[in-house]
Amino acid sequence: MKQGEPSVGGFKFSAVAAGIKKPGATKLDFGLIVSEAPATVAGLTTTNLVFAAPVAITRERVAKGISRGVLVNSGNANAYTGERGIKDALDLTREVGEALAIDANLLIPMSTGVIGNPLPVDRMRAVIPDLVSGLAPYRYMDVAHAMMTTDTRPKTVQLDGTASSGPFRMLGMCKGSGMIAPNMATMLAVILTDIRVDQPFLQECLHEATAASFNSITVDGDTSTNDTLLVLAGGSSTALELGSSSSDREAFLSLLNKACSDLARQIVLDGEGTTKIVEVRVTGALDRDAAVKVARTIAESPLVKTAFHGEDPNWGRIICAAGRAGVAFDPTQIDLYIGVVPIVKDGLLVQGDWESAAHKVMSSKEFLVLVDLKSGSADARILTTDLSEEYVTINADYRS
Amino acid sequence: MKQGEPSVGGFKFSAVAAGIKKPGATKLDFGLIVSEAPATVAGLTTTNLVFAAPVAITRERVAKGISRGVLVNSGNANAYTGERGIKDALDLTREVGEALAIDANLLIPMSTGVIGNPLPVDRMRAVIPDLVSGLAPYRYMDVAHAMMTTDTRPKTVQLDGTASSGPFRMLGMCKGSGMIAPNMATMLAVILTDIRVDQPFLQECLHEATAASFNSITVDGDTSTNDTLLVLAGGSSTALELGSSSSDREAFLSLLNKACSDLARQIVLDGEGTTKIVEVRVTGALDRDAAVKVARTIAESPLVKTAFHGEDPNWGRIICAAGRAGVAFDPTQIDLYIGVVPIVKDGLLVQGDWESAAHKVMSSKEFLVLVDLKSGSADARILTTDLSEEYVTINADYRS
Repeated sequence: MKQGEPSVGGFKFSAVAAGIKKPGATKLDFGLIVSEAPATVAGLTTTNLVFAAPVAITRERVAKGISRGVLVNSGNANAYTGERGIKDALDLTREVGEALAIDANLLIPMSTGVIGNPLPVDRMRAVIPDLVSGLAPYRYMDVAHAMMTTDTRPKTVQLDGTASSGPFRMLGMCKGSGMIAPNMATMLAVILTDIRVDQPFLQECLHEATAASFNSITVDGDTSTNDTLLVLAGGSSTALELGSSSSDREAFLSLLNKACSDLARQIVLDGEGTTKIVEVRVTGALDRDAAVKVARTIAESPLVKTAFHGEDPNWGRIICAAGRAGVAFDPTQIDLYIGVVPIVKDGLLVQGDWESAAHKVMSSKEFLVLVDLKSGSADARILTTDLSEEYVTINADYRS
Repeated sequence: MKQGEPSVGGFKFSAVAAGIKKPGATKLDFGLIVSEAPATVAGLTTTNLVFAAPVAITRERVAKGISRGVLVNSGNANAYTGERGIKDALDLTREVGEALAIDANLLIPMSTGVIGNPLPVDRMRAVIPDLVSGLAPYRYMDVAHAMMTTDTRPKTVQLDGTASSGPFRMLGMCKGSGMIAPNMATMLAVILTDIRVDQPFLQECLHEATAASFNSITVDGDTSTNDTLLVLAGGSSTALELGSSSSDREAFLSLLNKACSDLARQIVLDGEGTTKIVEVRVTGALDRDAAVKVARTIAESPLVKTAFHGEDPNWGRIICAAGRAGVAFDPTQIDLYIGVVPIVKDGLLVQGDWESAAHKVMSSKEFLVLVDLKSGSADARILTTDLSEEYVTINADYRS
């Protein structure tokens, strides 16, 4: 392994410039992750009724429970491309599988970019030999680059954990700028670990970690045709086994939680036009669903988000958003804090100069908004952003 | 009646500057509408769990079925003001009722403006004599001004209809700039007619007319603590009676529909930062609820709204928003039009240069987006706006 480029055992990486968006472009846009041995795989894909060809194939292949790797491209989402889109994705994974001499049905395709255009299959096919010959254990950062669309920086995370059988690593990478970019900025994420984990547990951990990370971020509430999240575990034939003890399972889940939260936070941070990151926390809800609804309604309200941008402690907008979330609570009982500054206590506006203190909190790049509904014990947190003029400018730009 | 100022029989109007927002300000901010005789009343108020003191009183008083008028102020919403807010609104209507020598319980209070501060009752009380002495049948435009907050212009509508008993008029006025202004720009509307209508039918008509007008506009999806819509019918003791024939009832409902639609459209047109008005029409849905859900999800998507602003026929964003509306349909069957330009037919992107044609449609100030889900026969339309940099600038401004 190249000095200063730690990675995760059992996986190799490669990426090339295939000129997918524009012939001749030199941006890395076609990436490959190969697992030396069949890895356990778990995955989640978009809940949007409109989903891309690679998502359809990903669902089938993840269901097998084992995978030999991921073939990813940016510049074209292969979405809304009909039967041809399916054929293109099948052809490309088959050809890469043949070049690698592995079962192509174990190779999972991911795409992101403009939708409605067929993949430039000829240009992609032409670079498969380079893609395969370039595989190396340390080149994960090239794959992180190859999945970027409007992202301003690659997003990776590396974490170490300890199980009873020994230490293990986790390497995650993702792309996405909070679903706010032109042409449906998809969220793609791949997390790799060098320890072997049984599939049902892996899928269960992925659900749990996602709820508190990728599903708890929002920039504008839009979800894409291509959103996909994969975890591959135990890429080498000599991989350690995760034990079945609760301490082993907790160690794994905790590390996966951390990896997902870190990547999700990087996505929010990279949202174009983002100048603030705000954690909206709702406590005291009747149940988790109610807490999520209130937090999400606050986090997605354009009036609240513009007030965040203006560093304006406009508590009325926050309470008003809570009130229209479709969740029962007593508005005359609630508490509202911005940072540690109480603004509403027991349903009454706090007397005294909370305003300058709250404004000061909001002048930071990151701050907390807390609403205690006092109707139960469930809570939820959503990471959101402000809504800036730049967001509008970027997204109103005519597609180029 | 003053020349050139037509109005509606049986009602008198007045407005004064009470300096509600700032002492000494000369903007009309305190208005009064008085019905010469007890009028039939129907009303709708905000569905937000957090509602203002005047809304609580309005609900009780509308339930009586008859009303002698409306007392309205801007500059202060009397919302989130606790017990004191209720007392203030009761005191003010009582004092105006005494000055008019009418039953104060038949006077309906409406407020709009900043929330969280008590009404400046002393300043308001001081101008009650002027308010009452200024009553005149032609001064409705002053009341329309007195309810304005961030509205850039007063909004009124006058319509004539014919029932079997003779001709009747309808006069409507409202304030609101699409719920987009700072501090919860409330929607307030009052519609007056000189024909007497039985209360259950009036309430029924109001529900129906609202569904297709005020409830079918959206600027940012936020609803306020004070939203209120009232209809008062038959303000004079000699008012005509609406007959019970179906042609009479249709004539009335049709006129109320027109009045509500006209006012709702004026609200959308007056949204700050609005440069486009877009009708999102969804047809072929399984049921009305499904059609509304899809139309609203498209109409409220920031990605779609910024594309409207950029005059970008970004069909992918529209279809993607439809796909996440939580409604079942087959994406491979749908049609999408921008204006009369087909972009997607039977789930396939139309070949040829639809793009410049669609862009041309979107360069108009008003245009249509039509999605045919082809899964049923229900439809819905929502009037929405674009999302502009100016919207953000206005709403991020720190409250002054």
